[in-house]
Amino acid sequence: MEGLLPPMSVTANTPLSEQYVVGVDFGTLSGRAVVVRVADGREVGSAVVEYRHAVIEERLPGGGPLPPDWALQHPDDWREVLRRAVPAALADSEVDPGAVIGIATDFTACTVLPTLADGTPLCEVEGLQTEPHAWPKLWKHHAAQGQADRINALAVERGEKWVARYGGKQSSEWEFAKALQILEEAPEIYARIERWIEAADWIVWELTGAESRNACTAGYKGIYQDGTYPSAEFLAALDPRFADFPATRLAHPDGLAALGSRVGALSEQAAALTGLPAGIAVAAGNVDAHVTAPAARAAEPGKLLAIMGTSTCHVLNGTLLAEVPGICGVVDGGITAGWYGYEAGQSAVGDIFAWWTGLSRRSHEELTAACADQPVGGHGLIALDWMGGNRSILVDHDLSGLIVGLTLATKPEDVYRALLEATAFGTRVIVEAFEAGGVPVEEFVVAGGLKRNSFLMQVYADVLRRPVSVAVSDQAPALGSAIHAAVAAGAYPDVLAASEAMGSCESAAYVPDPARADAYDVLFAEYRALHDAFGPAGGALHRLRKIRNAALAAAGQDASQDSNQDPNQDTEKDQDQ
Amino acid sequence: MEGLLPPMSVTANTPLSEQYVVGVDFGTLSGRAVVVRVADGREVGSAVVEYRHAVIEERLPGGGPLPPDWALQHPDDWREVLRRAVPAALADSEVDPGAVIGIATDFTACTVLPTLADGTPLCEVEGLQTEPHAWPKLWKHHAAQGQADRINALAVERGEKWVARYGGKQSSEWEFAKALQILEEAPEIYARIERWIEAADWIVWELTGAESRNACTAGYKGIYQDGTYPSAEFLAALDPRFADFPATRLAHPDGLAALGSRVGALSEQAAALTGLPAGIAVAAGNVDAHVTAPAARAAEPGKLLAIMGTSTCHVLNGTLLAEVPGICGVVDGGITAGWYGYEAGQSAVGDIFAWWTGLSRRSHEELTAACADQPVGGHGLIALDWMGGNRSILVDHDLSGLIVGLTLATKPEDVYRALLEATAFGTRVIVEAFEAGGVPVEEFVVAGGLKRNSFLMQVYADVLRRPVSVAVSDQAPALGSAIHAAVAAGAYPDVLAASEAMGSCESAAYVPDPARADAYDVLFAEYRALHDAFGPAGGALHRLRKIRNAALAAAGQDASQDSNQDPNQDTEKDQDQ
Repeated sequence: MEGLLPPMSVTANTPLSEQYVVGVDFGTLSGRAVVVRVADGREVGSAVVEYRHAVIEERLPGGGPLPPDWALQHPDDWREVLRRAVPAALADSEVDPGAVIGIATDFTACTVLPTLADGTPLCEVEGLQTEPHAWPKLWKHHAAQGQADRINALAVERGEKWVARYGGKQSSEWEFAKALQILEEAPEIYARIERWIEAADWIVWELTGAESRNACTAGYKGIYQDGTYPSAEFLAALDPRFADFPATRLAHPDGLAALGSRVGALSEQAAALTGLPAGIAVAAGNVDAHVTAPAARAAEPGKLLAIMGTSTCHVLNGTLLAEVPGICGVVDGGITAGWYGYEAGQSAVGDIFAWWTGLSRRSHEELTAACADQPVGGHGLIALDWMGGNRSILVDHDLSGLIVGLTLATKPEDVYRALLEATAFGTRVIVEAFEAGGVPVEEFVVAGGLKRNSFLMQVYADVLRRPVSVAVSDQAPALGSAIHAAVAAGAYPDVLAASEAMGSCESAAYVPDPARADAYDVLFAEYRALHDAFGPAGGALHRLRKIRNAALAAAGQDASQDSNQDPNQDTEKDQDQ
Repeated sequence: MEGLLPPMSVTANTPLSEQYVVGVDFGTLSGRAVVVRVADGREVGSAVVEYRHAVIEERLPGGGPLPPDWALQHPDDWREVLRRAVPAALADSEVDPGAVIGIATDFTACTVLPTLADGTPLCEVEGLQTEPHAWPKLWKHHAAQGQADRINALAVERGEKWVARYGGKQSSEWEFAKALQILEEAPEIYARIERWIEAADWIVWELTGAESRNACTAGYKGIYQDGTYPSAEFLAALDPRFADFPATRLAHPDGLAALGSRVGALSEQAAALTGLPAGIAVAAGNVDAHVTAPAARAAEPGKLLAIMGTSTCHVLNGTLLAEVPGICGVVDGGITAGWYGYEAGQSAVGDIFAWWTGLSRRSHEELTAACADQPVGGHGLIALDWMGGNRSILVDHDLSGLIVGLTLATKPEDVYRALLEATAFGTRVIVEAFEAGGVPVEEFVVAGGLKRNSFLMQVYADVLRRPVSVAVSDQAPALGSAIHAAVAAGAYPDVLAASEAMGSCESAAYVPDPARADAYDVLFAEYRALHDAFGPAGGALHRLRKIRNAALAAAGQDASQDSNQDPNQDTEKDQDQ
């Protein structure tokens, strides 16, 4: 390309239709770069690079085995996306790199790593490559549950004000639990940690050469609330050595960067890596789910965006701060600067459908065709969609699913439809929790692979009694990053304005059918009754899990194969249904 | 054969080892004849004949369509078994027909037909062939539920003493409900009924030329208790035209025949039909499940015989009359003369396993191999085995099944094992009901096709904490009939003596493993809690069924495809697992 087109320089007079931005979306298994026209959000080129090491769960590269529930990643796999996907996307777009005015990124979270003060990952420090705790911990690293439990118990005991901002519970996946695990299990590694940083911010550091901290991950994953991290007293009560953790490893003199803000210029080194012009704007780090809202034109308060894939993450802006029981978190500017960003989730959605297709040895297409014309309630079933635990509103990974109403005439498609409906009912519980908590939900917007399942979308419209709008882009997180890049470069005054120009959404693509909605109201009452009967702690589902775990442990088997995962991630894996 | 061997005549000096009997088992789809040596019960020949008309559900032979839930049979299909299966079994045995000293039969029940005073089925009367109500109603004719409901309501209202003998409820499958249906829907046919007779007794009539009534069907299906049928006052309150029903259509001047008693001699006509010598003993009619007890050496009090196939029927002798809530019935001499015969059932057992293999597209063998080595509780699941309703102890065909504890790691074999275990838990509920009601259960004896599933048998031993014995014969009902024939012919003083000589059972073939039994105790407590939570009338399962039925009716679809069936039948269909 460089040989074919002369380099361009964007001036104040260059129309937006001749300016471009790059968005890079870092998922669990791959990274995707997209080149987007600033004027209208048109995606003119893209490229995907799979991570060479994928998820490191069994053993370190060239090293020893890992304990159960561990999940690490290799930082150079992320660099590789900058090195290969960005140039490839540029080439695919046939856009002159000189026309690119900014770059932004989004990442899975909480994916977090220990570094030296200059950003060097500890796992790349000579002598530390063989230390498991020196490596980046992927969001689905689930080996810090004990630490999370202690954090939660102490926080409740001490009445920490921030507890309610997280629906009552910190996840084992988040920054403090993962750091505390290192402190407790490998204090010598902990002592080497100079910075403890989200990959979302680390990748930006790679682009600018300077550290920054974004408001989203600090709020949702780093317990940053009301201008501060948890107190030294609280942390000292966990472990005296932990008292200075935020002051020494998290806090940044510049504070937190708003989403869409320019945190620096692309460094010469990063320019060489990516083929982009040095000096262009680099936006604050961001999270894959949250960055999607403007891409789907779902950033305005009242629009609940669901990124639906293997799991579902819900993000929603509100104008007021409310503490909604059972949500994942509320963060000032956590989705869009100026509003309170709410996050909720369903642990497993597409995962449940895939579980059933695998179990019944039938395809999504076959099952959908067989059940789509059933009258609502015709299968006589109600399922609880907790096969991956319940993230919102029960915040309980130890729950499990159930199917009620089975007869000898129950067919695989009946169960399949009941499972689809169960996830819709689960979403309705979340919607009702938001509304009961004072956060209005007027429209339901869907991004992620499941948006292509039109039967599912209609079920959601009917169950939620709300129009379902659908994001147009099939790479909405990367587009969302590009929108943030445009704002960081000054092409738009704010993310909302950029969203209106560059985002796209098929509004009210599905509208509720009143008769079906009425019929679903009756079934939802049954779902809710089962939800409330089986949800409370110490019930049959918890007892069965304990029995199972004890039985497997006694038999020397591992029960971790289904350790439930945080729903706020992994939405990039589209499911073709 | 007749040409090869000279006819023999059995004399008082003929040793039992040279005497034979014939047992004929009439199932739902076929009849089986077996020739058995009197001395030791050795089965020396057998033959099966399938019914040409099988189950008549859609339309009458050469006639009009039938309403939903109807199930009829053709009486000549039954004669065909006498005509073809008996001679074929004789030929197979190479036994001289002259060495046969008696014949006995067993039948599905309540399979019942209207006849003239001479035993001619109404459907064979000129001009009545096209009348659906003139035909024999098979046990699984389920169109008399409204009549059963009215019988039950009135009986409870009037405090009829016999109500408690049937666990509190008459089934729609039984004699009075089916007869009342004819009276209400086709009074002109009802007026033509001179005798209303169980097929179990009608087939004996075909053999002897004279009507008799056996104690078993009269008690379990005909509400004959304490020497009498329901009162004329009770029946008149149902319908004045029904008041004389037992007196005119059921009662026999000779009263009821004890099981194993000789009710007559084989007529010349029947001798010509079967190839057996005229004049040999013909035993009282009997029912397929009940007749099996002596074949499995399970007639003694304390031995609970389970005939396990698509469904399970339990029969158990007790020395005392007890009214056990939720059982199908208790009848004086209903299994063995001299004891109180108790009957209970599980609506679906093998049917549930087959449902799951079909749904998961995997074989019993594959699923069993995959789950057999799991530690107890290792799958984390509990199922309620009500996919075909619950016969005992809840007596509720409108219940449905559930599976609790599902995760994304749940595999088809996990559910399969949970379903096997659920049926064992369901059996334990029945065993505990008997014991709580004062009827001891010391040993569990299994006949029927599922006895060959050794993994299932071990699960039952562990769950029940009792040894599981297994009937040796693969055609135990027919052998049971043969045993009754031997008693009727005077070869043994009573059924128990004949059972000891001719029956066979692998005693304690499976014994409980204490550790597994302890683990199952914990799971059974969970099963019982779910049983008690979901069992009561008006709960979620009933609401879901009503929703389903209304939805399907509104959509013009039929919900009857899974109308749950009486468990006391259809045990002849062996399942190869």
